[in-house]
Amino acid sequence: MISNFSYYNPVKIIFGKDTIALLSKNIPSGSKILLTYGGGSIFKNGVYEQVKAALAEYEIVEFGGIEPNPTFETLMKAVELGRKENVDFILSVGGGSVLDGTKFISAAIPFEGGNEWDNIVLRKTKYDKATPFGAVLTLPATGSEMNSGAVISKASTKEKYGMGSPLLFPKFSVLDPETTFSLPKNQIANGLADAFTHVMEQYLTYPVNAMIQDEFAEGVIRTLITVAPKVMKDSTDYDAMSNFMWAATVALNGLLSTGVPTDWATHQIGHELTALHGVDHARSLAVVLPYLMKYKKEDKKGKMIQYAQKVWNETGTDEELIAKAIQRTIEFYESIGIPTKASVYGVGEETIQEIKKRFTERGVIYGERKDITPDAVEAILRMSIA
Amino acid sequence: MISNFSYYNPVKIIFGKDTIALLSKNIPSGSKILLTYGGGSIFKNGVYEQVKAALAEYEIVEFGGIEPNPTFETLMKAVELGRKENVDFILSVGGGSVLDGTKFISAAIPFEGGNEWDNIVLRKTKYDKATPFGAVLTLPATGSEMNSGAVISKASTKEKYGMGSPLLFPKFSVLDPETTFSLPKNQIANGLADAFTHVMEQYLTYPVNAMIQDEFAEGVIRTLITVAPKVMKDSTDYDAMSNFMWAATVALNGLLSTGVPTDWATHQIGHELTALHGVDHARSLAVVLPYLMKYKKEDKKGKMIQYAQKVWNETGTDEELIAKAIQRTIEFYESIGIPTKASVYGVGEETIQEIKKRFTERGVIYGERKDITPDAVEAILRMSIA
Repeated sequence: MISNFSYYNPVKIIFGKDTIALLSKNIPSGSKILLTYGGGSIFKNGVYEQVKAALAEYEIVEFGGIEPNPTFETLMKAVELGRKENVDFILSVGGGSVLDGTKFISAAIPFEGGNEWDNIVLRKTKYDKATPFGAVLTLPATGSEMNSGAVISKASTKEKYGMGSPLLFPKFSVLDPETTFSLPKNQIANGLADAFTHVMEQYLTYPVNAMIQDEFAEGVIRTLITVAPKVMKDSTDYDAMSNFMWAATVALNGLLSTGVPTDWATHQIGHELTALHGVDHARSLAVVLPYLMKYKKEDKKGKMIQYAQKVWNETGTDEELIAKAIQRTIEFYESIGIPTKASVYGVGEETIQEIKKRFTERGVIYGERKDITPDAVEAILRMSIA
Repeated sequence: MISNFSYYNPVKIIFGKDTIALLSKNIPSGSKILLTYGGGSIFKNGVYEQVKAALAEYEIVEFGGIEPNPTFETLMKAVELGRKENVDFILSVGGGSVLDGTKFISAAIPFEGGNEWDNIVLRKTKYDKATPFGAVLTLPATGSEMNSGAVISKASTKEKYGMGSPLLFPKFSVLDPETTFSLPKNQIANGLADAFTHVMEQYLTYPVNAMIQDEFAEGVIRTLITVAPKVMKDSTDYDAMSNFMWAATVALNGLLSTGVPTDWATHQIGHELTALHGVDHARSLAVVLPYLMKYKKEDKKGKMIQYAQKVWNETGTDEELIAKAIQRTIEFYESIGIPTKASVYGVGEETIQEIKKRFTERGVIYGERKDITPDAVEAILRMSIA
């Protein structure tokens, strides 16, 4: 049975060629804008020029240097700038990290209670204001452009947490596939792996006869695996990049998880690998999911069989289909150059014990059946370094 | 290539058992509510009692008797009541007709320019206010619960037109599958046919390599044809009704038409059959689409082949697949008791000429290639009475 659900997503998507030029129609005139971006790729691909041209009429304050896995420490500098300059609107230009960071900045600028890590990231206080923001997305991956969540890291303690609020939906997101043409292959691969894993976390649980949700999830995965070789070969293929970009957005805009159980244990374990070993977010997922599938193959049996059949057109006995579900998942990651063993990143027994300790201390158990205990995390990671 | 598109849909969906009880959390407290409904089925299925219990704290004014294909004449009475009573919120309780009527009422109550037929239905004036409204949906069919469009009829002139505005999204729609358990079979069949045809109008055009849009459309159609025999047999099957209800909603919430060509000629022709012969909306579509497919089989070839293969698992030559696409569509409608010949409703040459005349006078040409001319309309309808 489909669980009761509530779905609300007011993000305006502006999709297509030359759509950055539409920015001024979507930001209130007279706004003072904080422009947030990352390491500077927007200066190389022409996006910065397009944005500045589109916003010629606005007063702009810039904050660059938001890193992948954006840190609280960096973001608080943007918050201070935004407060000092009294900005009315924030425009995130970049990928999911810049946008996630911008969501934190949006919540923190008007927040007056102090201790933003505890109050906003760890959600210890309910806040009722956020500075409105929009996004120009340059990397299909995280889905942050059409949801109200973010993942923020703390450099000083090597922690990484998810945060969110209904106040943190972007007012709009501009998705121009041409802005992705100059992406390096490793980032394209990361984006594919990230979007793919997002769908898997919402799909590969247990069946509740949610037909639309299953059809949509399978459709998004099939799209990703179909476009993967194309975008890896030629990142200037407009059709393939368009499909990749829209797939990554719908992969995490809330639609796929309506009324169905979700897992998210892979993400939680992956976050620790990123925090402790600096593994790229998407790559951290690829060294967890296959072993989580193995570890949970009895509980996830129904969906693993369905996945092997519907997504990969496999046939065979239940046993064979389950094995193929895992194998095909590993092959998908590897086909785009993403390793599927944590040992590649130097993860060993010490890291596993530290992660187990963190999960024990946190006391939150993940997985659709709330059974990915610290022992389970240990077992899953052991397979990944075996 | 996917066309540039903009997608925005702020409707909050509240889905599941006993969700009518959540109404008061979604309507501002202290609101004076205009409760709109239709012919009284809500008094038989317990929905009225549930709604009144949920709204015990509010002042309520009731307006019943909104008919299928809601008429301007009836709706203006509700508008006058709403104005007189100074209502702050409107709650539509019923199916798509009540909700479509409510959208008109919402736009008309605060409108001060008079001549609401021309100004609001025929969109001759831009208005900037609408009374906020929500919905309790009792019939999966039109998709009106998650979009900003409506279709309104004028009894005096036997006209039927589509209207809409970004102001006319419901604030929320409550979808409790149990409210549909007492629906008569003919209404369930109509709902299935309506939702099915909505998807076809957005899907069966020409391919633009929009993979997500195609996957989602095919997924919705497969869901509808899978649940159809189940809900026709047992309207109290919660799983089947849930899937039907959610499928009908996503069939017309804007997602399927993002960046792809759309047809809508079947609807435009069907509207005339409803206006002139009183044919149920959904039934009017079923006597047009198969012949539009036949008439346009060269132009729609690519998608007809894809549809036969992906939706119906058919194989064969292109010629065979095209024939099967049409045949399967006819069989689907007939399988749920929906006739596929306009002659069944007494439509003859005279009606065809009147419809041709109306299309000629209107001067608007429909179809994804803007080529469903008055002559094409005549040819299509001739096949339907042959």
